[in-house]
Amino acid sequence: MFSSVLIANRGEIALRIARACHELGIRSVAVYSTADRDSAVVRFADEAVHIGPAPAKSSYLSIPAIIEAARLSGAQAIHPGYGFLSEDPDFADICAASGITFIGPSPEVMLRLGDKAAARTAMHEAGLPVLPGSSTALTTSAEAKETAQQTGYPVILKAVAGGGGRGMAVVRDPDELLTAYRETRAHARAVFGDDRLYLEKYVDDARHVEVQVLCDRHGSAIHLGERDCSVQRRHQKLLEEAPAPHLPEGLRAEMCEAAVRGARAVGYEGAGTFEFVVTPSHEFYLMEINCRLQVEHPVTEMVTGIDVVREQILVAAGLPLSVRQADVTTRGVAVECRVNAEDPDRDFAPTPGLLYEFVPPGGPFVRVDTHSYSGWRVGPDYDSLLAKAVVWAPDRPQAMARMDRALEEFRVGGEGVRTTIGFLRRALSHPEFRAGRHTTGLVAKMAAEEELGSSATDRF
Amino acid sequence: MFSSVLIANRGEIALRIARACHELGIRSVAVYSTADRDSAVVRFADEAVHIGPAPAKSSYLSIPAIIEAARLSGAQAIHPGYGFLSEDPDFADICAASGITFIGPSPEVMLRLGDKAAARTAMHEAGLPVLPGSSTALTTSAEAKETAQQTGYPVILKAVAGGGGRGMAVVRDPDELLTAYRETRAHARAVFGDDRLYLEKYVDDARHVEVQVLCDRHGSAIHLGERDCSVQRRHQKLLEEAPAPHLPEGLRAEMCEAAVRGARAVGYEGAGTFEFVVTPSHEFYLMEINCRLQVEHPVTEMVTGIDVVREQILVAAGLPLSVRQADVTTRGVAVECRVNAEDPDRDFAPTPGLLYEFVPPGGPFVRVDTHSYSGWRVGPDYDSLLAKAVVWAPDRPQAMARMDRALEEFRVGGEGVRTTIGFLRRALSHPEFRAGRHTTGLVAKMAAEEELGSSATDRF
Repeated sequence: MFSSVLIANRGEIALRIARACHELGIRSVAVYSTADRDSAVVRFADEAVHIGPAPAKSSYLSIPAIIEAARLSGAQAIHPGYGFLSEDPDFADICAASGITFIGPSPEVMLRLGDKAAARTAMHEAGLPVLPGSSTALTTSAEAKETAQQTGYPVILKAVAGGGGRGMAVVRDPDELLTAYRETRAHARAVFGDDRLYLEKYVDDARHVEVQVLCDRHGSAIHLGERDCSVQRRHQKLLEEAPAPHLPEGLRAEMCEAAVRGARAVGYEGAGTFEFVVTPSHEFYLMEINCRLQVEHPVTEMVTGIDVVREQILVAAGLPLSVRQADVTTRGVAVECRVNAEDPDRDFAPTPGLLYEFVPPGGPFVRVDTHSYSGWRVGPDYDSLLAKAVVWAPDRPQAMARMDRALEEFRVGGEGVRTTIGFLRRALSHPEFRAGRHTTGLVAKMAAEEELGSSATDRF
Repeated sequence: MFSSVLIANRGEIALRIARACHELGIRSVAVYSTADRDSAVVRFADEAVHIGPAPAKSSYLSIPAIIEAARLSGAQAIHPGYGFLSEDPDFADICAASGITFIGPSPEVMLRLGDKAAARTAMHEAGLPVLPGSSTALTTSAEAKETAQQTGYPVILKAVAGGGGRGMAVVRDPDELLTAYRETRAHARAVFGDDRLYLEKYVDDARHVEVQVLCDRHGSAIHLGERDCSVQRRHQKLLEEAPAPHLPEGLRAEMCEAAVRGARAVGYEGAGTFEFVVTPSHEFYLMEINCRLQVEHPVTEMVTGIDVVREQILVAAGLPLSVRQADVTTRGVAVECRVNAEDPDRDFAPTPGLLYEFVPPGGPFVRVDTHSYSGWRVGPDYDSLLAKAVVWAPDRPQAMARMDRALEEFRVGGEGVRTTIGFLRRALSHPEFRAGRHTTGLVAKMAAEEELGSSATDRF
């Protein structure tokens, strides 16, 4: 086992990883930007190294700064968390070249699955269902138009290097394709430094269901069941649950087996997520594979009792997974709400500011993952996630009642800081959500409904 | 179901009950003394009623004040929590006479089991093993001496009206009996208003193992397994876990069945606890029955997934339990630490004061039940419980590592406030505790060991 692990991330996930290290008896090394010098993980980790100014490219995205911090602190391994360098094969490569274990899949696997178009092809070959679309990256707008014609509208344009719901555009009409192609390409170039796009059939009224897999070097590849992440706003997840409601048992088993098959096909190692779209007629298609820990991993932990980060560390250290597939059982229902410092009344614009009061909910079956505290300043430099509120209950109605209770008692006060708590409570109370019959269209539908309600202008 | 429930308590347990009400869609009514006007439950409950000044007899122990608050607020039921009026049959009687449901067993059952000597006899008749001792209350010191002679020393003197670890004294030598008898009687008179005592054989190196039972009005009486509460200081529990480590399966089953048999024998209703002493040779004897929710109920909730307070409310409303015995399964290990505002270096003297920083631990499988927050003033009027830190893990070593992590990240700062966090972490790391081979003598042993360690004077 490693004696020391560096955490190449910030915010709640850095603290999450430090906690796992502590419980394994591993010395944790945090890194922090100037803006994060008062962050909770700096206090909680065994050591903290300053790696540069606030802009991510000068700190959390700076490979030299992070490798140097690992060298200075004697860390034997690096956990990249999510976002930042977590899906960068070059970073994984440089770690290996520096004699440091990267906690994640091999650079080869990351490279292969990170190219979303290539991953589509590889998974199709492994027998996983993929949506009709381009089999390689599109080279011209004409090719895009032709492929779209073949698959039929609506289609979705996606950045080959994308992920995490960024760099994509739904196109419903041939007349919009050219503009969408240009804009998405420009966006992809700006955000990912790679303007290649691919195209898939887009399914309306679909659900987003993903399967968590864990694989070790000893031939074990297992799944921890699925999560439903259909509550999204502009492809960003807001609320996730496990298991997925109303998923036929046969379909659930098929999806989980497909994910394990896909992972085996590429020699996957560590924790990964297979994201699927589930159509209203219960067909499923692979969307993409995330070669990292997901923000929403806690709901899987709550129903299975398995600590996903712990397993990641065990696997990276060359140890076998602590559980076999036959030992994985799920109990009850878990839900996660992402509480963001955003103003739902102003198109979810981030609202940075000083938190003068931050009292997260507690009590029975409530878990909160947060780096925020009373006195913490929410800065403008990073994402607006304040906390993840997670609850567990024996069944879905109790879980949703518990989440509503937890959100109600969540006290966040700050200079100019607004939160998504009220919005999340409205989503929980929406009839379609309560029935577990919602799709990825829920949030747009809520907005439309609230616009219709004449006196509801102050609510969304 | 009730539309409104009054919570006749304060602190963390009042909040715990309000949370259960909220999740059931029941309006919660808090009561508060002047000292508690800024308490968390006052903010969180749907309504809060001021019932008098700080001394408990003028507020939380004032039956007229509480009944009046229930009438004013239209509460249909009262949850008494633990302590205060929770085991007072008169209070339960007056609730009934006032047309208010008391959430707990009937006054008759409380009366019968509240007299610890009578309860001993009733349970002996129901076939439960009780320790050798007096079959009725002792009337004279001579009778005490004679009974002690028959059972053999050491013996323990206990107040008939006692409970919760108060009003008891271990006597190891016949010469000490008379003094102990007088002192315990005087203490019992002062604390419980009832100076009757009884006497039992005292078992050294014993373990304290208790069984949680739940009974409804429809003939269902089930157990939720056991808790080990052997880590005690002066009969006060400091740390509890479920299940009890190294308890042979046969013994576990016998104890759980005995508890259910005992509950059935007296027509018990609601949640109750059968406290047993387990000897080094694995015999078990009933100590007492607690007719109320226990402080340590969360560890049972974490391993069974069953919300004990919710079941109490369902049963009191005349509904059946939500689970049958066959549905009750336990998973993993849960531990609870009571974080008290006390100074371990000054004989655990309470340290009231203003909390300027209070950041409880969080993250995977951590639950905190607390009414404390940054800015809360820990008053001198009530017990010194700041928070209950509870963790769950698949096995005992992981649970203890997780608890140590949780306690390490617990940040409590206050004017003059000290806590038992350091003490609890030392208990967790004690070799006997780590091996799960500790008894109720652990804390005394720790004190003796630390006294021996010459440079350890600042550690206990």
